[in-house]
Amino acid sequence: MDASLLKKAAAEQAAQFVEDGMMLGLGTGSTVFFLVEAIAKRVKEEHLHITGVATSSRTAQQATELGIKMIDINDAPTLDLTIDGADEIDANFQGIKGGGAAHLLEKIVALNSKRNVWIVDQSKLVQNLGAFPLPLEVIPFGSNKLFQRLAAENLQPEYRLNANGERMRTHNKNFVIDLHIGVIEHPHLLGDWLDHQTGIVEHGLFLDVVSQVVVGKETGVEILQAPR
Amino acid sequence: MDASLLKKAAAEQAAQFVEDGMMLGLGTGSTVFFLVEAIAKRVKEEHLHITGVATSSRTAQQATELGIKMIDINDAPTLDLTIDGADEIDANFQGIKGGGAAHLLEKIVALNSKRNVWIVDQSKLVQNLGAFPLPLEVIPFGSNKLFQRLAAENLQPEYRLNANGERMRTHNKNFVIDLHIGVIEHPHLLGDWLDHQTGIVEHGLFLDVVSQVVVGKETGVEILQAPR
Repeated sequence: MDASLLKKAAAEQAAQFVEDGMMLGLGTGSTVFFLVEAIAKRVKEEHLHITGVATSSRTAQQATELGIKMIDINDAPTLDLTIDGADEIDANFQGIKGGGAAHLLEKIVALNSKRNVWIVDQSKLVQNLGAFPLPLEVIPFGSNKLFQRLAAENLQPEYRLNANGERMRTHNKNFVIDLHIGVIEHPHLLGDWLDHQTGIVEHGLFLDVVSQVVVGKETGVEILQAPR
Repeated sequence: MDASLLKKAAAEQAAQFVEDGMMLGLGTGSTVFFLVEAIAKRVKEEHLHITGVATSSRTAQQATELGIKMIDINDAPTLDLTIDGADEIDANFQGIKGGGAAHLLEKIVALNSKRNVWIVDQSKLVQNLGAFPLPLEVIPFGSNKLFQRLAAENLQPEYRLNANGERMRTHNKNFVIDLHIGVIEHPHLLGDWLDHQTGIVEHGLFLDVVSQVVVGKETGVEILQAPR
């Protein structure tokens, strides 16, 4: 089955988690696109009163156009639920996000949410993280020095480029360095080390964050419960 | 004696550390202003060949105007020596920087330097850090949530405002939150905790960084050797 059909099925299932009156965090990406459509449909048909906080201008625009009331995170109380995609989820429910370079804002929203649900197609479930390149948002000033430190630590860094072959810029005008590690054996140790590196604004490891994963599979949608 | 005379004396002493052929990091602030003048004088009179990397556009401009060759840190090899000011230095040679909100770039330069020298007047030497507010450069998105987390941890956060009473913006368009802690009993524990908070780009604790401190005192200039 087409991956986008699996994503859509997962997104529609997750839209059922939304309850009247909720403060909702909305992620970014192709799966979240389907989610926002499905939530907007429920809001309209069931007259739900929900308020959303977006992790990107793309999501904010789509949600607003579809009639979902959106506010800035700085004006919001703690979020009841955030639903977002993920690039990889391992057997311990740890994840990598940031293929879309929005992981900084996504992590800020996730950490201000009582409950996090990720929606993915089955290809995102892995035994160990790391086949998907781990994104870092980095300060341009001195980034070549940081790059050398990452390479010396054998973390296989690579600047992410835009369509013109230039270093891509995030929402905050920072660069993205992807780490092509292959297998991340110790995600907490790696996350800890990265947290301490000056010049890294945020890395794409989302550890101990997700509560439930909604997986679109060939055989139907499955809901996995994380041990937290 | 006027503090600026003490700063000037320390800066002129530190300028003597510069050697022909050095790659030099230049800090930011009122003491560094005197330093750049003193180095430029030596470059001119002694025909020194040095290359500098600046931690702010202010310093870069001053140095360039005075005839010091300046390059971008991303084009520089590892720096031989960085000379910068500091806002507080404790009995263990740990420091707080960032009164000028340039601590992110200052830390990046410091960590890419083989040797770091700080130039201060005697008022900056303290038993414990913390009387000087500890600056954090923070991502505006979600910063009010971060502020609440800092307040809940009893770290006495306060947004830094500009002359118009608006939240001031750093070089990277981020906000500054100052922590009015009073006494920082455990700088490494605090630094570690701050490193792990999503949304903090960098804090102003400079731990295990400085090699020598040049202090302008009423009784003359004193050079303190850090145990590293």
